[in-house]
Amino acid sequence: MAETIHDVIIIGAGPAGLGAGLYTARDRLDTLILEKFMPGGQINNTDRIENYPGFEKIDGPGLIENMQKQVESFGAQIKNGVDVDRLEKRDDGPIVVHAGKDTHVARAVILSPGSSYRKLGVPGEDEFRNAGAGVSYCGTCDAPFFREKAVVSVGGGNTALEETLHLAKYASKVTLIHRRNEFRAEKVLVEELLAKANEPDSNLAIKYDTVATAIEGEGKVQSVKLRNVKTNEEESYPCDGVFIFVGMVPNTDFLKGFVELTDVGFIKCDCAYLRTSVPGVFAAGDCRIGAAMQLVTAVADGVNAAMQLKQYFRDPAWWNMPVSDMLSPGGW
Amino acid sequence: MAETIHDVIIIGAGPAGLGAGLYTARDRLDTLILEKFMPGGQINNTDRIENYPGFEKIDGPGLIENMQKQVESFGAQIKNGVDVDRLEKRDDGPIVVHAGKDTHVARAVILSPGSSYRKLGVPGEDEFRNAGAGVSYCGTCDAPFFREKAVVSVGGGNTALEETLHLAKYASKVTLIHRRNEFRAEKVLVEELLAKANEPDSNLAIKYDTVATAIEGEGKVQSVKLRNVKTNEEESYPCDGVFIFVGMVPNTDFLKGFVELTDVGFIKCDCAYLRTSVPGVFAAGDCRIGAAMQLVTAVADGVNAAMQLKQYFRDPAWWNMPVSDMLSPGGW
Repeated sequence: MAETIHDVIIIGAGPAGLGAGLYTARDRLDTLILEKFMPGGQINNTDRIENYPGFEKIDGPGLIENMQKQVESFGAQIKNGVDVDRLEKRDDGPIVVHAGKDTHVARAVILSPGSSYRKLGVPGEDEFRNAGAGVSYCGTCDAPFFREKAVVSVGGGNTALEETLHLAKYASKVTLIHRRNEFRAEKVLVEELLAKANEPDSNLAIKYDTVATAIEGEGKVQSVKLRNVKTNEEESYPCDGVFIFVGMVPNTDFLKGFVELTDVGFIKCDCAYLRTSVPGVFAAGDCRIGAAMQLVTAVADGVNAAMQLKQYFRDPAWWNMPVSDMLSPGGW
Repeated sequence: MAETIHDVIIIGAGPAGLGAGLYTARDRLDTLILEKFMPGGQINNTDRIENYPGFEKIDGPGLIENMQKQVESFGAQIKNGVDVDRLEKRDDGPIVVHAGKDTHVARAVILSPGSSYRKLGVPGEDEFRNAGAGVSYCGTCDAPFFREKAVVSVGGGNTALEETLHLAKYASKVTLIHRRNEFRAEKVLVEELLAKANEPDSNLAIKYDTVATAIEGEGKVQSVKLRNVKTNEEESYPCDGVFIFVGMVPNTDFLKGFVELTDVGFIKCDCAYLRTSVPGVFAAGDCRIGAAMQLVTAVADGVNAAMQLKQYFRDPAWWNMPVSDMLSPGGW
């Protein structure tokens, strides 16, 4: 059987991958999008998006559904449940994508694997993660399981604050612990959090300068061990669940040895045209160095990669051309 | 009276400026957006957007209205009709924006002035531009004035094809002329154009390898002089209007001598963090080098600049820091 060589394979159908697919499909490039789970990635886990310009408020699954329909309407093919193991570049140009026993081949690849929840790395975290034992990384997904229960949430960024506010709608009590005495989240969210915490009889409490050192219980979470980083005082704090919102790590393990990665796994690229160390392979979204890690910047990365891809198809030597007139602060 | 120093002034309320304003306002930064005309910029001139991920179809003014409401709901102030003349950087850091007799001062500035219609540069173009004399750069705006009339449109990119298809809904005849024998527009648009032109008794004709050398008439457009670039044959082609869709030039004249520009007027910057040659001044959108010139990439530029601005406020020395681990094809 003759081998099918797609024009482009996009790895990951989150916002970056769908942005890329919309543009390659509109350009009538034969586009195959490989997704490990289902389209959307992390964005499926949020029920409240207010910072995607154009929508005053939309939930993650709703936005993704719109994007997916839009992409498919122009003929891109999305395959779900495809777990890519590794990639290789053939000497004659095409890139081979291996997923279990299957292989897919394309003239160019856009890497948009996104990122996953960062773990806290404390005793009990893995033990209680499964089957509703009490550890979760997604308030939007799991809040309803903690109706009228007491939970502890951990973190200080946008997601931590949004999710903590969401949890307060369900739980009888939410205690947000943060290792610093100031949040790095957008001020509008900090204000909303503080206003909620300051309501009379509020079910939301904040503990600053506090870290979790262990999650404890028998069969399920019963308490979390907290330590004040200023006084070093420790306490065993009773709760039914722990929600961990301490950031994301790029999903790039499968790329080790194929493209250049940073120590912590971000894909190295030039931030103008998103070219990686392998000709014909672009990076888009949260997986790359220098990413602003926002929904719309991920989408735009995908679009940008799709636009640049045309230059590569026109002239492969373009891969090594510098971005003309680009400023270089600190002298690269 | 004490001088007001805003946190950030955004120059231009198009997609890039509104993207930036949404994020700075959500960060509770005192945000002033200065707009020469009215919010939206070029995007107001399109009635059909299919490539802004999340909306299967929306018109430009509708999308801009959404974005403007969203930005203002978080407290950003938009001033329309402000024509910025020049900027200067004070020795102690703040940036002064001059607009006629008024001055506005801010700790940081995001430049998002967008771009304007490129002229064809032929005799008659300026003469007939005014008052419905027959030369236009915007089909969406002016098509209804040419109901049952014959028009010529010029160009080969996305906008040219979209606008020509739009004109065909109104005019009795549309002739698209293009200097090459192939369009650079997205293939999906090329297909739609060719399908329309191939309909029986179509009112849409295409002339390849053809340029306009003059626009002629008495008091108003009556014909356009065409030349075939392959045969060099010339003809006087009767029509009631000429629509020119040959690209955009950045609106950066007012920035000459303030930030570094390229020969053709694009703002030089580092494409990762959008820093210009002046500390505290960012560039976002179609006005900068390396821009993908798409709606969503402009919006994301604004968002990116707004995100990076926080790093500058935290530590002004950040301005000269290289983007770590960035690849440099061709060795900058």
